[in-house]
Amino acid sequence: MLGVCYYPEHWPESWWERDAAEMAALGIRYVRIGEFAWSRVEPEPGRFTFEWLDRAIETLGKAGLKVVLGTPTATPPKWLVDLYPEILPHGEDGRPRGFGSRRHYTFSSAVWLRESARIVTAFAERYGQNPHVAGWQTDNEYGCHDTILSYGPEDLAAFRSWLRRRYQTPDALNEAWGNVFWSMELSSFDDAVLPVAAVTETGPAARLDFWRFSSEQVVRYNEMQTAILRRLSPGRFVTHNYMGFFHDFDHYAVSEVLDFASWDSYPLGFLEKFPFSEEERARFTRTSHPDVPAFHHDLYRGMAGNRFWVMEQQPGPVNWAPWNAVPMPGMVRLWAWEAFAHGAEVVSYFRWRQAPFAQEQMHAGLNRPDRVRSVGGEEAAQVGVELAAFGPLPENRPSPVALVFDYEASWITRIQPQGADYRHEEISYRWYEAVRRLGLDVDIVPPGADLSAYSLVLLPSLPHVSPAMLQALKATEATVLIGPRAGSKTRDFAFPDNLPPGPLAELLPITVTQVASMRPGRHAVAGDVAGGAGRWREWLETELAPVASFDDGGAAVVAHDRFIYVATWPEADLLGAIVETLALPRAGLTALPIPPDTIRIRRRGDLTFAFNYGTEPWTVPEAESKRFRLGGATIAPQDLACWEG
Amino acid sequence: MLGVCYYPEHWPESWWERDAAEMAALGIRYVRIGEFAWSRVEPEPGRFTFEWLDRAIETLGKAGLKVVLGTPTATPPKWLVDLYPEILPHGEDGRPRGFGSRRHYTFSSAVWLRESARIVTAFAERYGQNPHVAGWQTDNEYGCHDTILSYGPEDLAAFRSWLRRRYQTPDALNEAWGNVFWSMELSSFDDAVLPVAAVTETGPAARLDFWRFSSEQVVRYNEMQTAILRRLSPGRFVTHNYMGFFHDFDHYAVSEVLDFASWDSYPLGFLEKFPFSEEERARFTRTSHPDVPAFHHDLYRGMAGNRFWVMEQQPGPVNWAPWNAVPMPGMVRLWAWEAFAHGAEVVSYFRWRQAPFAQEQMHAGLNRPDRVRSVGGEEAAQVGVELAAFGPLPENRPSPVALVFDYEASWITRIQPQGADYRHEEISYRWYEAVRRLGLDVDIVPPGADLSAYSLVLLPSLPHVSPAMLQALKATEATVLIGPRAGSKTRDFAFPDNLPPGPLAELLPITVTQVASMRPGRHAVAGDVAGGAGRWREWLETELAPVASFDDGGAAVVAHDRFIYVATWPEADLLGAIVETLALPRAGLTALPIPPDTIRIRRRGDLTFAFNYGTEPWTVPEAESKRFRLGGATIAPQDLACWEG
Amino acid sequence: MLGVCYYPEHWPESWWERDAAEMAALGIRYVRIGEFAWSRVEPEPGRFTFEWLDRAIETLGKAGLKVVLGTPTATPPKWLVDLYPEILPHGEDGRPRGFGSRRHYTFSSAVWLRESARIVTAFAERYGQNPHVAGWQTDNEYGCHDTILSYGPEDLAAFRSWLRRRYQTPDALNEAWGNVFWSMELSSFDDAVLPVAAVTETGPAARLDFWRFSSEQVVRYNEMQTAILRRLSPGRFVTHNYMGFFHDFDHYAVSEVLDFASWDSYPLGFLEKFPFSEEERARFTRTSHPDVPAFHHDLYRGMAGNRFWVMEQQPGPVNWAPWNAVPMPGMVRLWAWEAFAHGAEVVSYFRWRQAPFAQEQMHAGLNRPDRVRSVGGEEAAQVGVELAAFGPLPENRPSPVALVFDYEASWITRIQPQGADYRHEEISYRWYEAVRRLGLDVDIVPPGADLSAYSLVLLPSLPHVSPAMLQALKATEATVLIGPRAGSKTRDFAFPDNLPPGPLAELLPITVTQVASMRPGRHAVAGDVAGGAGRWREWLETELAPVASFDDGGAAVVAHDRFIYVATWPEADLLGAIVETLALPRAGLTALPIPPDTIRIRRRGDLTFAFNYGTEPWTVPEAESKRFRLGGATIAPQDLACWEG
Ligand SMILES: [Zn+2]
Ligand SMILES: [Zn+2]
Ligand SMILES: [Zn+2]
Repeated sequence: MLGVCYYPEHWPESWWERDAAEMAALGIRYVRIGEFAWSRVEPEPGRFTFEWLDRAIETLGKAGLKVVLGTPTATPPKWLVDLYPEILPHGEDGRPRGFGSRRHYTFSSAVWLRESARIVTAFAERYGQNPHVAGWQTDNEYGCHDTILSYGPEDLAAFRSWLRRRYQTPDALNEAWGNVFWSMELSSFDDAVLPVAAVTETGPAARLDFWRFSSEQVVRYNEMQTAILRRLSPGRFVTHNYMGFFHDFDHYAVSEVLDFASWDSYPLGFLEKFPFSEEERARFTRTSHPDVPAFHHDLYRGMAGNRFWVMEQQPGPVNWAPWNAVPMPGMVRLWAWEAFAHGAEVVSYFRWRQAPFAQEQMHAGLNRPDRVRSVGGEEAAQVGVELAAFGPLPENRPSPVALVFDYEASWITRIQPQGADYRHEEISYRWYEAVRRLGLDVDIVPPGADLSAYSLVLLPSLPHVSPAMLQALKATEATVLIGPRAGSKTRDFAFPDNLPPGPLAELLPITVTQVASMRPGRHAVAGDVAGGAGRWREWLETELAPVASFDDGGAAVVAHDRFIYVATWPEADLLGAIVETLALPRAGLTALPIPPDTIRIRRRGDLTFAFNYGTEPWTVPEAESKRFRLGGATIAPQDLACWEG
Repeated sequence: MLGVCYYPEHWPESWWERDAAEMAALGIRYVRIGEFAWSRVEPEPGRFTFEWLDRAIETLGKAGLKVVLGTPTATPPKWLVDLYPEILPHGEDGRPRGFGSRRHYTFSSAVWLRESARIVTAFAERYGQNPHVAGWQTDNEYGCHDTILSYGPEDLAAFRSWLRRRYQTPDALNEAWGNVFWSMELSSFDDAVLPVAAVTETGPAARLDFWRFSSEQVVRYNEMQTAILRRLSPGRFVTHNYMGFFHDFDHYAVSEVLDFASWDSYPLGFLEKFPFSEEERARFTRTSHPDVPAFHHDLYRGMAGNRFWVMEQQPGPVNWAPWNAVPMPGMVRLWAWEAFAHGAEVVSYFRWRQAPFAQEQMHAGLNRPDRVRSVGGEEAAQVGVELAAFGPLPENRPSPVALVFDYEASWITRIQPQGADYRHEEISYRWYEAVRRLGLDVDIVPPGADLSAYSLVLLPSLPHVSPAMLQALKATEATVLIGPRAGSKTRDFAFPDNLPPGPLAELLPITVTQVASMRPGRHAVAGDVAGGAGRWREWLETELAPVASFDDGGAAVVAHDRFIYVATWPEADLLGAIVETLALPRAGLTALPIPPDTIRIRRRGDLTFAFNYGTEPWTVPEAESKRFRLGGATIAPQDLACWEG
Repeated sequence: MLGVCYYPEHWPESWWERDAAEMAALGIRYVRIGEFAWSRVEPEPGRFTFEWLDRAIETLGKAGLKVVLGTPTATPPKWLVDLYPEILPHGEDGRPRGFGSRRHYTFSSAVWLRESARIVTAFAERYGQNPHVAGWQTDNEYGCHDTILSYGPEDLAAFRSWLRRRYQTPDALNEAWGNVFWSMELSSFDDAVLPVAAVTETGPAARLDFWRFSSEQVVRYNEMQTAILRRLSPGRFVTHNYMGFFHDFDHYAVSEVLDFASWDSYPLGFLEKFPFSEEERARFTRTSHPDVPAFHHDLYRGMAGNRFWVMEQQPGPVNWAPWNAVPMPGMVRLWAWEAFAHGAEVVSYFRWRQAPFAQEQMHAGLNRPDRVRSVGGEEAAQVGVELAAFGPLPENRPSPVALVFDYEASWITRIQPQGADYRHEEISYRWYEAVRRLGLDVDIVPPGADLSAYSLVLLPSLPHVSPAMLQALKATEATVLIGPRAGSKTRDFAFPDNLPPGPLAELLPITVTQVASMRPGRHAVAGDVAGGAGRWREWLETELAPVASFDDGGAAVVAHDRFIYVATWPEADLLGAIVETLALPRAGLTALPIPPDTIRIRRRGDLTFAFNYGTEPWTVPEAESKRFRLGGATIAPQDLACWEG
């Protein structure tokens, strides 16, 4: 189903009715509103002006639309900041980050939590049982603009409390952090400082704890909002709209109390955010790289309930990337169908109409500022027609491949990259891409998830292997492909006693005795598989004969039972060979013969979808035997097809 | 005529008389002094020691030299900063920018204005009627070292007052700024904050207003100084020395009270300041790019009275660029003559003698620190001889081409580049260059200026088209060449109701429905004109058939009546073709056959000057029929010629 | 002899005895301990817990090991910072640099000096006469993490006192700093501000004085510690462990009170710290550039007593460079022998065992965290065996070549580079390299040192030539090769009255009349020597005929008597030609025929060592006539040889 983000407060009330009618005509079912409207709803402390919002919801509801109501906590109004300046977040330089945009709050402020509860309660009391309100979105894009880690006095106080609860005694903290090093020992929890702005790097265990603390604060904050909504708005769903390529907090933990996760899909903007090569960026500048939307669909589908929404879908050029391209004709439609193929329940465009003013005025909408439907709006309308004709989409089935994605791994490798270009996000995405280039479906799962249903499990980046994770690996019969640095850290950011891969040595008889981070450049690997490697190399102590080796004979890949270990950062060719010729046969899986750079396949239930991100048409193999539900045997560039089976 | 900048306070008084005699001998008529001498004139609060300056002026005057006296406000002394620390400017980080260099004041401080008035009055009372004092320079290089925008408490208070005067009510401000977006609404002017240091970008209308406010403060400050000087120094001119490639305030508005504008010409330093390509920088490293001095001559000639001075002329290597080349032999002479060709009344070298100490010790002068004439000094002396022989230069005539240059356009595109390499300064300069490569003279004029005398008008960058500007375009019969983004913003930094090009749609039946900023790379444009385009592309809704199109058929250039619209950022080849084959024929103008990369032509009255920036000699066409006043038929590299007609 | 750095406080006491036994077995004689152990020795103010350290020293001593005890002042404990927050250093932004790592103190704090004296006294009283304690290391790596220049209130107060002592009157200071420029004159020493955070650049003389002041504070601090140790620990040596490629204070002056200098040798990490080309970094990524260790050995041998130690030697990958390679097999051994060849008395590895926790957990040791000997540990053991067999090494003899290295020159050229890529460190290193590529030994000496013993003296970078330096040049008969900018500044950072080369004009009849810093690019130089030049060029006024010239005839190299002057930054080919064909013949020296990119030769006494940094074996010429003490005629990559004669 389609949705849209709408800001009735941005438009004359006289426009609302026509807007609602046009939404319905376009096939839209859900309208998200309210998430930045605090100053319009409570213009001064305690004086509420909900009447306009009542009318807006009523107008939408009368048109047959369902409302998703956002709590407006991402934009505390000026009077609140003036009353309680301590709610402001602080930068690494210790200075407050001020009013004038959004997300100007720290999760550490008790006053902020109280005020947040107050406004969420006010919203929920007013609309919790409104018949047009189908569900809620908490806040908006937690962490956007680097707002997870805050370095102010409120944060320090909260962090000290958290440490006290976690460690009970200063000695336990000193031990966990290795504070004997450089005389950093503390004699009281009030000695603890934020791990920032020291003369040189602060302790990695301290930094990891500060990140965990900060992430847990998001969890607690979201729980607070959700609990209020559950109590006052029974029967409505609660979700949150996450971002792309953002890993500053544990999204799995935040999602635990949600009905499902949502995410905001800006495929072209993300092309500039992820470290793609300049060649890739030039090539895919108007389509995005073919795995960008899919990676996130699969990630967020795994958060809660095997469901997800796209809460904000790019409908044309955006305003926030270094360069902002116009999507190739067809992409606005393609992205919507691709989301549905990956299991999305709703694809909601951001936004109904381009705002002619303020920060996002260059961000397209389904309509132009002059109330004419935009190019992207036309494509959305086509999706609306197609969806209506299509009928209900089948249930999503589990994928044959699981990729374990760990947020803590992102923090650990950012705290200690050891090599300037070692990026958790990049290796995770590239391993996902490698499997998708072979036409296979992937589920992205948290560490510790049940892996028994999968044939192949990827662990591209998991420095800390928890007991639950180890247990899950033991409990599955899947082939497991393990990346470098796996098991290299304990919970307290230390070496495991048996050296890396720590607990994984139970499964795979190797010891990592030395590691090198390597300057940019390609190193040849040859053996049963061949290709290039770079960035990282490990020296293994093992009885295992290498499956592939470096020039000097050192192992690059080893295998034992169901476990394959990659002791380096494989480039695309080596990684592709490892997956295709080592992992898939062991896992009993078969690659599909697709052009790997541009065609993507995804199954939903008994349907198969194919998407063309390239510049050449592609003909579906054995098309004559297929029953097409969308498109046909030949898929034009930026087009798609769907067939049964 | 020649001038020079002199610092008697830097040298033993016993040197002054010989210095003055040597100046006169070199052909110098004007000597600028005093602009950094506050601490020597008022060493402690209220105690004035003007006697040394009396003697210096007398010494110069006795040698037949005229004095241009600078007010010393660019360098408040330490005791003043200690008495009134609130005069210090503040950086974006909110910290004061301290004592120890220059320009350490904010235009927002009422105390600073009072103290400035006091010292200017003291100077004017003492020297306003001195027979050797020909005129005044206010302050020095307003804005140098990024000192227009200041972010301190004084600035906030002044900005709030300015907003109160401008908007009368908070609601009007909220409306103009679009504050409903992200709950940014204010309920009082005391709620307004400086648009800086927020969590993410602040409102563009707020930022534009802060820039306008800051610019207007410079206007007001310069008016204050000028009014004092007018009152106490009747019959003397007042000017200010502006900088190159600097657009942080509205120079037109500041110039309104001046007799003429001056500017400080450092052609080699500016090569590093403007985004030239590395190839250009390497090629022109010792001459500067051929349009750098001319662009500024034409810009500053248009400020006030159709007159201008070069107040500081580079006489050799400078000290402040990343690399500081020695000018090619001949350039110090060439730059002086080029200034005269563009209408300069005086070319004043900076400085008489290289200082052996302090911040600018690596900046050349006409003399070396050891009192020997420098290489550049020898060239200046040659100019002196030539000028004496030449006799009076003719009056300047209007040019056939006008380029509208708008300071607000610089602020708008910096606030909202939308593409990382979209630069107002760059497109303005490149369009100027395109016309100059064809041998045509250009006047640079402010938006709203009378355009009726011109055959061709260029609007390379004018996002906000005011009613006066629209009227001027209607009132002229010139061919008008319009660049991308024209008319795309209202006065309040919003979309025009009819979408871009807003008011220009009256002249040209097009609507811009989508825009893309494009990553670096060349996109082919073909049709009546052909070439490359990049950075920016617009999609037009229009009945007009494209004059040139992109690959996919989208219009790149359209024309209607006298108006040509370029819906992209044209590269040099496409831009050259547009000007030469579309614009000039319509305008009834003819290009000159010059080597466009290196030869520049400029007419002053009935004289024609030619300048050779290249490495090969150039022969003037039909030279036998010309009466040469300088040089001859063949112009050597770094040489020039002047002929009648 | 071998040494090692050990942290008993990091390990269970039950491990100490085995550790000590294994050290002794490996051939280690010296163990450095204690330098980061303050919080373990004084866990709260005035409560000392030396007993564990007593036992650690006793355990080591019983195993026959000698202890080098570090004073623990590099890591003030948290309680001290809380008691006296004024000890914290401040950044350029004026904010304190806080607790959480190390070196969080400013040399300006009187309280810090008092507390330092207190803890040093406590250490010295307890261990000064301990029979196992052979010597002391003061603090650790003065200046590491940019801690020489500090910008807080304590620093300002101390700087004002220093200025008062130096200049006596404000007028003298104003004169020395050229404060008349830009009205910067001060009327009292309390007017002086730190030369930082002004609107634009502050006065160069002020900045140089601030650097001198800061350097002198290190001298004074080290003297304070040393005096205590001398008094309480008679008969023990005192040293300090300096860093590589670090020049923020005058190491010669600090060394005056030491018995010898030590330094910390991390050849692979330094490859990323020095501006090597990317090609060099790629090529030498696992060996380091062949002159990196040698340059520092020669530099630190010249500090005090013609002796030096390597106090920390890289034993494997480190953790702190952007990329951290594993040394090629053989390099850990090679670096040790190379240090001995250059005269090192002790090579002490950092560290005995890799710490599994805290900031340096990725830094290798001689042992792995699991108590197994590491790859580097095996190579160290080989050195131990070889050293035992070798017997005593001969005395070091003077080298034929001296290179004058001046710390103030580093400050001067950083304060005023004039060209963005003009780096004192780089030109100094490259001139050293040029001589070493020809197989010659070099002594690095301070300006003013006696040069009478040398045949060739290099002055790559000496902007300020003191009277003592001039005298030394007059007093030697050596050929002197002088680089650009020599003699270009007075003590007060001004031009000399006679222009550059200032006092050197007594020796060489030239005057530098203009200088250019040049954008990256190669400029041809030809004549008696030929090659490329860049970055810098000077114009000379002289009667001397150029030895080599630029394209336009300007001199690039001139010579007069024993003096050769290079008026540009020579590239490797031109520099090599100058040294080999101009300088060596005049000096009566002969180059050795070695592959200059990879083979290095060093004589110690009557022994000659050769080291192979390359990828090909090298055969020693006339090997049959040599008596080899290590290795043989053919030296494999990463191997070495030593022969008599
Ligand atoms: Zn967003
Ligand atoms: Zn200037
Ligand atoms: Zn260190």
